Amino acid sequence: MHDDLSLPELLVKGEQHFLPSVSVDNVIFGFHDNELKVLLLKGRESRKWGLPGGYVFKEEDVEDAAARILKDRTGLTDLFLQQFHAFGSTERTKIALIKETFDGFQLDLTKDSWLMQRFISVGYYALVEYAQVTPTPDELSAECSWHQLNSMPELIFDHRLIVEKALQAMRLQLNYQPIGYNLLPKEFTLKSLQVIYETLLGRKLDRGNFNRKILSYGVLDKKDKLYSGAAHKAPYLYAFNKEKYFEALKNGLEQSF
Amino acid sequence: MHDDLSLPELLVKGEQHFLPSVSVDNVIFGFHDNELKVLLLKGRESRKWGLPGGYVFKEEDVEDAAARILKDRTGLTDLFLQQFHAFGSTERTKIALIKETFDGFQLDLTKDSWLMQRFISVGYYALVEYAQVTPTPDELSAECSWHQLNSMPELIFDHRLIVEKALQAMRLQLNYQPIGYNLLPKEFTLKSLQVIYETLLGRKLDRGNFNRKILSYGVLDKKDKLYSGAAHKAPYLYAFNKEKYFEALKNGLEQSF
Repeated sequence: MHDDLSLPELLVKGEQHFLPSVSVDNVIFGFHDNELKVLLLKGRESRKWGLPGGYVFKEEDVEDAAARILKDRTGLTDLFLQQFHAFGSTERTKIALIKETFDGFQLDLTKDSWLMQRFISVGYYALVEYAQVTPTPDELSAECSWHQLNSMPELIFDHRLIVEKALQAMRLQLNYQPIGYNLLPKEFTLKSLQVIYETLLGRKLDRGNFNRKILSYGVLDKKDKLYSGAAHKAPYLYAFNKEKYFEALKNGLEQSF
Repeated sequence: MHDDLSLPELLVKGEQHFLPSVSVDNVIFGFHDNELKVLLLKGRESRKWGLPGGYVFKEEDVEDAAARILKDRTGLTDLFLQQFHAFGSTERTKIALIKETFDGFQLDLTKDSWLMQRFISVGYYALVEYAQVTPTPDELSAECSWHQLNSMPELIFDHRLIVEKALQAMRLQLNYQPIGYNLLPKEFTLKSLQVIYETLLGRKLDRGNFNRKILSYGVLDKKDKLYSGAAHKAPYLYAFNKEKYFEALKNGLEQSF
């Protein structure tokens, strides 16, 4: 869609191509070993960091816009992308910073310009195995890279709040939707799934409680034992039951209520 | 804000007053005895039913717009209003129906009009004791009334989907946030709280499991026994611990993970 035009070309006549007042911001969490990171972009002009985001074409679903941005920045498709909140405060975007971000692209932005208005932003989060990702900056950015959550640089607009809210939503999700599908090999031990939950929650979990709870959801199939010299001590391998997993993503895990 | 202008007067020059492309829809669930209902409006011109909704003033937070609409339709303030999803499909609003809705208000709507564009809608839900509510139609509506969820009339746009998604979100909420604060007298039995959960979920719950789970959240304070002739059989009364309740609304209930 509009592949013949560069982003600055699209933006200068934004009102012809994009929905007014609406943007999308993606919080892309990257999991690897015991680490949780977030993907950030550094503006070419402003030299400030922010989330991968963008605008919604007039003939594009908001959800498709989020998926397009995710694909453009990571090269990955078919990821579970969860809408978690629309950010609609009047205070969230600062005109001065919009100007600074786009200065140098010769967009000829007057104060009535489409780009200089107030935007509300629909936030989505995704969780990826970051070894699979090739971070790719957009045309307005000089750099695209992974950052530790506890040592993020200063972020533009309300992007720090958006990251915090995404983390909160993702942690709540652990209690009613499954997670981990694209983060593990096809077969895995309960211990390696526990490491993911511990990393996402930022704290240690009791092994017995974790195993009991995760098995009670019915989204895991038991496979053979992990091969090792001492077979009687080897842990069992598990795989996600794809059908039950995606059913639970849609309708929630079976709960005690 | 803009109290001097009627809604049709505001709408005809909508681009001067409201954010373009953005609306708000409120799913107001009403609980009373064992019944769960939803508040709907019937258009004066279209004679079709829809959710109470509206537009966002340029200088108004989206959340404040939702609270304003809730207050205008119910007379209630300070209710817990939960944003649950932004609806952004290109297919959701049909121009023909917009025309039908506003026909007869002499708004002089051309196809370039602010009102005739595509809108994304931010959905909020609230849960109220409907005996406390005075349903009040807006200036575009002939009627405002409560409807059983399982026998709603046909709804405009994607409003049926919005109600379904709100119900799903509210049921998920039962698993990670407390509910019921404004639905019960100050002191109540666990049984009457169980009735609320059963009504929201649309199914019966086991009493022992319910009591164990609800007490484990730590948001209830035990009070005196309910007075009755046979005091030894009387159930205890409980009250919400306001501090812990609102803390849990914000950060989620303590979970096993």
